[in-house]
Amino acid sequence: MVAVNTHHPFITLTTDFGERDNYVGVVKGVILALNPSAGIVDVSHSIPPFNVAAARYILETSIRAFPPGTIHVAVVDPGVGTARDAVLIEAGEYFFIGPDNGLFSFLSKKDISQIISITRRKYLPKEISTTFHARDVFAHVAAYLSLGVVPDEFGPPKKSLAPLPGADMKRQNGDYIGTVIYIDHFGNLVTSI
Amino acid sequence: MVAVNTHHPFITLTTDFGERDNYVGVVKGVILALNPSAGIVDVSHSIPPFNVAAARYILETSIRAFPPGTIHVAVVDPGVGTARDAVLIEAGEYFFIGPDNGLFSFLSKKDISQIISITRRKYLPKEISTTFHARDVFAHVAAYLSLGVVPDEFGPPKKSLAPLPGADMKRQNGDYIGTVIYIDHFGNLVTSI
Amino acid sequence: MVAVNTHHPFITLTTDFGERDNYVGVVKGVILALNPSAGIVDVSHSIPPFNVAAARYILETSIRAFPPGTIHVAVVDPGVGTARDAVLIEAGEYFFIGPDNGLFSFLSKKDISQIISITRRKYLPKEISTTFHARDVFAHVAAYLSLGVVPDEFGPPKKSLAPLPGADMKRQNGDYIGTVIYIDHFGNLVTSI
Repeated sequence: MVAVNTHHPFITLTTDFGERDNYVGVVKGVILALNPSAGIVDVSHSIPPFNVAAARYILETSIRAFPPGTIHVAVVDPGVGTARDAVLIEAGEYFFIGPDNGLFSFLSKKDISQIISITRRKYLPKEISTTFHARDVFAHVAAYLSLGVVPDEFGPPKKSLAPLPGADMKRQNGDYIGTVIYIDHFGNLVTSI
Repeated sequence: MVAVNTHHPFITLTTDFGERDNYVGVVKGVILALNPSAGIVDVSHSIPPFNVAAARYILETSIRAFPPGTIHVAVVDPGVGTARDAVLIEAGEYFFIGPDNGLFSFLSKKDISQIISITRRKYLPKEISTTFHARDVFAHVAAYLSLGVVPDEFGPPKKSLAPLPGADMKRQNGDYIGTVIYIDHFGNLVTSI
Repeated sequence: MVAVNTHHPFITLTTDFGERDNYVGVVKGVILALNPSAGIVDVSHSIPPFNVAAARYILETSIRAFPPGTIHVAVVDPGVGTARDAVLIEAGEYFFIGPDNGLFSFLSKKDISQIISITRRKYLPKEISTTFHARDVFAHVAAYLSLGVVPDEFGPPKKSLAPLPGADMKRQNGDYIGTVIYIDHFGNLVTSI
């Protein structure tokens, strides 16, 4: 079990919102209105739109740089407004918040202490839009968690996370077949192989 | 009337400066040199250059996410160095600082408690460039306001704000005629209709 | 001599890492894991890749906006993994940390109080990658410096900084010949003339 550092709580953001609009600023405003002491750190807002595999890669390679207790919020959410679950995960030294669509499927079962299905309305606003859960759900859960609210206040436990469809390596006739997951700023390719 | 939270003062920035140059960093440096406790939050620095209507839209749809007392600085300023006024506005639960060129014309008269024409030099640097008022005027006013200096220390009151020219909807022969104000990262269009 | 403000330490970042990947977020995570009170400010992460002259220009025109004691980290580092030195410089009211490749060659000899060659491993992680010194070297030095560790704890003194090759103005047959160092977001050109 890990505890949020309520004296110096950090919340990271990984999204496909881009830098141009006000979506990121609005999410930060909502968090700071609930917890003015939250330290918010951008990981990336330039994940290719709706590319869950790229976001998963970015997240997996970033999280360990941050202090124990950091709350990692990731929102690349092609299924927003559908039946996909919203989750809060405690794993290793960190918390993770976002849609349950494969984003967090890199977390190993032995590292995960609990998975909460975010369904309780107590800490959420009365109106929740169908398209902006980053603002109306995930920002609220992150902020209250950073204030010391315990995970199971946000909903019932859940047994496992959704997998990420299609991003794995296959073997066929002795060849390895994978996909390009990410191309970085310097032109380096990352594949699933 | 609203008070700045001098314990946790937040200042948001909305500009057309882009992310590439050092303009945003310099503005932040000036604010932090005056008030190291200021929490600065980027709303957007990718407003299309000189597009006051787009900045107004971004601002109008962002401000309410932030805590009461937040100081919203917006600088899209095609008239910098001309006779356009610089203003500090107290409206609803927030403060607004920037050029008086229509950026803030979405604020309703009933919400506005006071408009100050920023003309007093007391809290400004000795030399003010003709092209970088974000650094030499608005950053200074925001920082001192965040330290608890009251609005009318910055200049005399002003009766009304400049309107935004040309961005309204018109009706012609039964048709509604408007303009596209903003296209977001996901391709959504916002019009004046 | 200048002292870091350990109560409100500021660290600025100037890099060519881009906004898209997680490199910047990871560097911030490493700093905050070591010093959660550090205030990190982005100057620019969109320096054209490997363009040391552009980074030098951005740095030179930004630093003075920040409070005395600010630690300026700059990483545009085409020679990472080679024999180029890593330096910590105390100059004027500021500290500078980064590769010794001409990035800091705008600092005048009379302003420089000391140059440290970062070679001591005491404050560095056990494993240092050959390609990501921003994370494994410079972030660590900046964080420990912001905690009050004195410069000469990081290595022995060094007499002078490496120059920036080729970016100066020449005079030839009565003509001035220089190079374009930087083109800003608004299309303004900066040359070496």
